[in-house]
Amino acid sequence: MSDTWLPSLRTATPQEGYDLAVKLSRVAVKMTQPDADARTRLREVYENDASALIAVSAVVATHFQTVAKANKYWADT
Amino acid sequence: MSDTWLPSLRTATPQEGYDLAVKLSRVAVKMTQPDADARTRLREVYENDASALIAVSAVVATHFQTVAKANKYWADT
Amino acid sequence: MSDTWLPSLRTATPQEGYDLAVKLSRVAVKMTQPDADARTRLREVYENDASALIAVSAVVATHFQTVAKANKYWADT
Amino acid sequence: MSDTWLPSLRTATPQEGYDLAVKLSRVAVKMTQPDADARTRLREVYENDASALIAVSAVVATHFQTVAKANKYWADT
Amino acid sequence: MSDTWLPSLRTATPQEGYDLAVKLSRVAVKMTQPDADARTRLREVYENDASALIAVSAVVATHFQTVAKANKYWADT
Amino acid sequence: MSDTWLPSLRTATPQEGYDLAVKLSRVAVKMTQPDADARTRLREVYENDASALIAVSAVVATHFQTVAKANKYWADT
Repeated sequence: MSDTWLPSLRTATPQEGYDLAVKLSRVAVKMTQPDADARTRLREVYENDASALIAVSAVVATHFQTVAKANKYWADT
Repeated sequence: MSDTWLPSLRTATPQEGYDLAVKLSRVAVKMTQPDADARTRLREVYENDASALIAVSAVVATHFQTVAKANKYWADT
Repeated sequence: MSDTWLPSLRTATPQEGYDLAVKLSRVAVKMTQPDADARTRLREVYENDASALIAVSAVVATHFQTVAKANKYWADT
Repeated sequence: MSDTWLPSLRTATPQEGYDLAVKLSRVAVKMTQPDADARTRLREVYENDASALIAVSAVVATHFQTVAKANKYWADT
Repeated sequence: MSDTWLPSLRTATPQEGYDLAVKLSRVAVKMTQPDADARTRLREVYENDASALIAVSAVVATHFQTVAKANKYWADT
Repeated sequence: MSDTWLPSLRTATPQEGYDLAVKLSRVAVKMTQPDADARTRLREVYENDASALIAVSAVVATHFQTVAKANKYWADT
């Protein structure tokens, strides 16, 4: 994760902001479990676990709050 | 999810804002588990799991905070 | 849920705001599990599950934040 | 819960605000499980369950955010 | 918990603010389980339970939001 | 944890802010479980537990909200 992956919290639209929130939720997992093979194995587990999917959605919701505020809720859209 | 599904966070009423929060909570699940058949199987599980339903409600609550703020709490309603 | 159930986030008192937060926490459950009989069965489960009750309280807390802010914390009360 | 139990979110001190947050976290449990005997049985369970105690603390933290903001963080104290 | 343990949310530095957040997360546990021996037994459990430790960290994060805001993010530091 | 590890919430970029959020999420674990060997054992557990990784990501999301706000969302970037 040494390259620049988060140059700004600004996005052109709410939907791009949502995509950024999804990205923000995934990076913490990568930083905690850096082994790509281990993450692939875990993905097969949580993709089929309703509670895990809901928990992922909760993390996205928290990040989307941040991104939405950073973009002043895309008031002009 | 390539089409525009989130053009704006603005809604006419608090109730439409709540519906949008529900939608926002579901999209992250779809993006994490893109297979519709797998989601149908999981839905049968979490629809009958009290903890999962409460967890869904928690995600909606977080998104509703964002949508409500974006709409300045529908102060004119 | 097609009728108007959320005309406004405004309430006369903090306590009515809390009641609204409870309502907001329940609607997402209804929208996710629309079958009333299924919800009755689940209610018997989570009413007697300490973790589920605490999780319900967490959802109420999040919605109460929103309602309180929408009412400017009932500063005149 | 028909009487007035929440006349205001204002408290004289941060510590009283914290006590109010604890109260706010408990009322949702009472409203969801109105049977006092059932709550007593559940209390014996969650008092000895580390995860449940931490979950209670999380709910208090969310309500404390609300109460603190309503009191402008007791800036004069 | 009858003595004054929370005279103010102000701290001199972010780090002291973090320490206060840790304290705030612990007090709710003490108020819910007042028996010190019981808490000692529980501590041995959650100190060795990854999920419990992460849940503690989540509560600290929520309180740190409150403390940071009360201190205007220590903008002068 | 007696040294200064959190002199400021300010960071030059959003990405450094995210790194700080990760750090903030880890310190509470260290303060709750000060034994480094115990933490190493626990790390092997939660690195391979999808739910734990998602929970870590949730804590990071909460801290990132705080850090982002402290930095006014890096509006100039």
